[in-house]
Amino acid sequence: MAAADSAYRPPVEDYAFLFGEAFGLDVVARATGRELTASDGTEIVAAAGEFAASVLAPLQTVGDRDGARLVDGSVHLPDGFAPAYRAFVEAGWITAEAPVSAGGDGLPGAIRAGLGEIWNASNAAFALCWLLTSGQIHALDATASDDLRERFLTKLVSGEWTGTMNLTEPDAGTDLGAIRTTATPREDGTWSIRGQKIFITWGDHDVAENIVHLVLARTPNAPEGAKGLSLFVAPKFLIGDDGSIGERNAITTLAVEHKLGIHGSPTCALAYEDATGHLVGELHGGLAGMFVMMNSARAGMGFQATGIADRAYQQAAAYAAQRTQGAVLERSAGTTIAEHPDVRRLLLSMSSKIFAMRALGVYVADLLDRAASADAATTALAEFFVPILKGWATEDALQVTSDAIQVYGGMGFIEETGVAQHYRDARIMTIYEGTTAIQSNDLVGRKVLRNRAETVDALLTRITETTERLREHAHPVATRTADRLTRAVDAARRATADLLGHGASPRDAYAVSVPYLMLLGTLSGGWMHALAVEAVLSKGEMSAGDAERLTMADFYGAHHLPRAYALADTVAAGEIA
Amino acid sequence: MAAADSAYRPPVEDYAFLFGEAFGLDVVARATGRELTASDGTEIVAAAGEFAASVLAPLQTVGDRDGARLVDGSVHLPDGFAPAYRAFVEAGWITAEAPVSAGGDGLPGAIRAGLGEIWNASNAAFALCWLLTSGQIHALDATASDDLRERFLTKLVSGEWTGTMNLTEPDAGTDLGAIRTTATPREDGTWSIRGQKIFITWGDHDVAENIVHLVLARTPNAPEGAKGLSLFVAPKFLIGDDGSIGERNAITTLAVEHKLGIHGSPTCALAYEDATGHLVGELHGGLAGMFVMMNSARAGMGFQATGIADRAYQQAAAYAAQRTQGAVLERSAGTTIAEHPDVRRLLLSMSSKIFAMRALGVYVADLLDRAASADAATTALAEFFVPILKGWATEDALQVTSDAIQVYGGMGFIEETGVAQHYRDARIMTIYEGTTAIQSNDLVGRKVLRNRAETVDALLTRITETTERLREHAHPVATRTADRLTRAVDAARRATADLLGHGASPRDAYAVSVPYLMLLGTLSGGWMHALAVEAVLSKGEMSAGDAERLTMADFYGAHHLPRAYALADTVAAGEIA
Repeated sequence: MAAADSAYRPPVEDYAFLFGEAFGLDVVARATGRELTASDGTEIVAAAGEFAASVLAPLQTVGDRDGARLVDGSVHLPDGFAPAYRAFVEAGWITAEAPVSAGGDGLPGAIRAGLGEIWNASNAAFALCWLLTSGQIHALDATASDDLRERFLTKLVSGEWTGTMNLTEPDAGTDLGAIRTTATPREDGTWSIRGQKIFITWGDHDVAENIVHLVLARTPNAPEGAKGLSLFVAPKFLIGDDGSIGERNAITTLAVEHKLGIHGSPTCALAYEDATGHLVGELHGGLAGMFVMMNSARAGMGFQATGIADRAYQQAAAYAAQRTQGAVLERSAGTTIAEHPDVRRLLLSMSSKIFAMRALGVYVADLLDRAASADAATTALAEFFVPILKGWATEDALQVTSDAIQVYGGMGFIEETGVAQHYRDARIMTIYEGTTAIQSNDLVGRKVLRNRAETVDALLTRITETTERLREHAHPVATRTADRLTRAVDAARRATADLLGHGASPRDAYAVSVPYLMLLGTLSGGWMHALAVEAVLSKGEMSAGDAERLTMADFYGAHHLPRAYALADTVAAGEIA
Repeated sequence: MAAADSAYRPPVEDYAFLFGEAFGLDVVARATGRELTASDGTEIVAAAGEFAASVLAPLQTVGDRDGARLVDGSVHLPDGFAPAYRAFVEAGWITAEAPVSAGGDGLPGAIRAGLGEIWNASNAAFALCWLLTSGQIHALDATASDDLRERFLTKLVSGEWTGTMNLTEPDAGTDLGAIRTTATPREDGTWSIRGQKIFITWGDHDVAENIVHLVLARTPNAPEGAKGLSLFVAPKFLIGDDGSIGERNAITTLAVEHKLGIHGSPTCALAYEDATGHLVGELHGGLAGMFVMMNSARAGMGFQATGIADRAYQQAAAYAAQRTQGAVLERSAGTTIAEHPDVRRLLLSMSSKIFAMRALGVYVADLLDRAASADAATTALAEFFVPILKGWATEDALQVTSDAIQVYGGMGFIEETGVAQHYRDARIMTIYEGTTAIQSNDLVGRKVLRNRAETVDALLTRITETTERLREHAHPVATRTADRLTRAVDAARRATADLLGHGASPRDAYAVSVPYLMLLGTLSGGWMHALAVEAVLSKGEMSAGDAERLTMADFYGAHHLPRAYALADTVAAGEIA
């Protein structure tokens, strides 16, 4: 009963398919005006995969076992994290993803989706540092003055400093309007920040020379609630006018939380005691600025969900491929458990969900790229998909990590096996960066009810077009996929009509907003599989990977898509009084 | 952000309803020939609840934090476990549940279901000691010779010694036929046992003076596979002819596993090195004997699922009832998060599943009591329900513990909050005492295909009778429940027909056996709610608890029962080639 192979195998071939084939065109070429192609994108993903497998993956269990520790007011990460971060920066991975306007290489969203999955799969605790730094780069690039860009943004893009987002307080989590941290103007143009922030991911650490906190705070006489919040940057160490690192800012690390998972990621409680901050963007415009970062982080959670799920799957699949136990029905002696009907079901359940998440991640990331310059409908669709990707992928990823334990049987419950870590690590994903309920309220309130389902309708029309094209292929998987997807589209239409009907009594709508989000996520996943089937059947010759894609699509249609029909019934019910 | 109330509140009122009302008669009175009534049963449950809340529940987090430790070859349990076990024994709880034939009080199954839930809810790690000892009592009572009854059974029934079950080996988990531990006869009539057993729950500890291991082993020249296994008892300390405790048997504790959860329960690897054992029952009849214990343990897992799920729910509900965050839609200022539409959805999702599990637990436990003396159809139905209760309740309980974390938001991910423990503890339930796949194979192979669905058909007829009676109540919840249940029964009929059709190519049946089990479990849960609705509406006056029962039934019908329709589609697909 050897522990299974926990080496990380980056899904390079799948990204080659997604970049170049799945969507019927080269999405990398379209996004970069042919500066890069799908083949370049695949090479970049392969290089990232190699780095992740050799440098980040080996630290994953170390991070879990040793965890981040607070000693004498300073946070220490487990051995190996600091050199790994330096190597990550030196290899240029932070700069690669930063926008060109911020001095980065400006890789397109599709490739960044792949990288995001890979950092998270190899080491989710480490990847949170990348996620937040990368998100802050986008936020500052969109909102910061030239002075702040010069002082902070350049250091983030180079990877010398890392970034955090400071929203949550003991009594202000989901409700940002309750934030009580204050920022008072000083004569020198800086602001004095006072208050306590909690759950600050990578809020303190020893892997980079400085940390840039992006802080939501309330200024004197600001309006009540969320509209009175402004955004500030506050560095861990103050910066001299020449850019040199000075003394420590008045920000104290009160605690590092003892968490269920992602132990390698320091989750800090920070006290701001007359700390120096700089206003970012407009006074009282803090929420808009923070939402640039938040939206980037939410899409990023889709990649994290894919990454953690795939790592759990890879371990389970590797174990199943080498473990023998019992005679396998209709298979020769010595066949491993991977061929037991129910283990095969579990493995396909996982892999078909992961493909759907991965494909939707690339699709949404590419759409977000295009949203900047596209028509209103494309922008609306991009924004529509952010809460779906975040909400649905993270919820489904939890089940994948649970299934991975199930494949191991009793061994999966033993911590040294390593697969339980993914189950623990994953559990935060449906909570941070906005819970699934927050995602579903955003979806239902802002993106369905407000425009009377215009965006949903456009999406359902697109999916229907895919089913029509699929039917032209006289292939049983194509036909079954089209039939099942058509039923799911019908379910989504019914649910959407019911939701609009609930609009008159909002509690009815918000009591079923999570089921509605899960319905659309499940359907979107089915659409991704349908596009894959179409792409595969349009080719002259099928690879082994292509054949597996047909199997996964067929499985998804039989095992996961029916949930859409069931959820439509739930949506119809509204709130149960 | 105070940690929520983690006190345990035993669900006494719900058991009063289940014993006396839910099933249209007093199940305790029927089971005991009116020696005890529902009201006695409720008092016993209340007494157990008081003991559990005051003695066992406070040790739950201690057990998790400190865990069982192996020091110099002996296992030590966390502080407080040994006195708690002594108090448990002195209060008579072990003896209360043992059969009269074994010298116990012979409490009926329905009450034992309630006690099983309560021990597990208050302290699941501790409850495993009770579960195994209680299971071994039933196994020895059914199979052991007078000599062994005198020497071992009496000590188990008194609670002086505890019991274990030794099946698993490094290469024999799910496949018992691969067991390699040997038992060789000695001249004195005892047997020499050699081999290694792993994952032995409560395999060594310091809370009682002796431990009785029930061991599956292979005797010389025994047939290959599972048919060559015999059953032995082997005590930790040898017993003199006068019953006195002698020297230590040759059983070494090699390791205590470092697990994801139930840290307070010592999971041991044991080496048998010429250990002394005594044959129990017939040579080569070991599996049948062990299955008495296994079946008892499997039903017991249904109670464990209910218990862990309810404790997680209670914590989440207590937190939600005191936490304010954000304005609650259509509710006055200061309303707690319990009334946010999605938090309410999560809480009702949990409570409605828990009621379904609890009710099915009582129903099945009572049916198992009656099976001993009833007609073949009742016996078949009782046996039919064991894998459903075990498989479905444990799978659904996992989701309940996940939902409980979700209610807490970020606080749920912090270990000190305490709710994450349930998520970790629960994860083993779908694995031990036979994985969900093993349960579903038992169900599909032995209890559906073998009798051409005779038992399922009888069950579906009963459920249909309930829906017909429900429709006679002109109450909207009754009507909706009847409609939804009828659809679910239709789904089960379709799925059963499809399954019988798959019978010709068994991989098709076994590739969807878990979805089929989950369909029947979901349906059975809906049936329990339907019976509750019927019982409530048949009363003159409704209590607050009764009104909540209608809400839960309505919620279950809208949110959980539709899964049955979806699963029927999955069953139809068979194996995806």
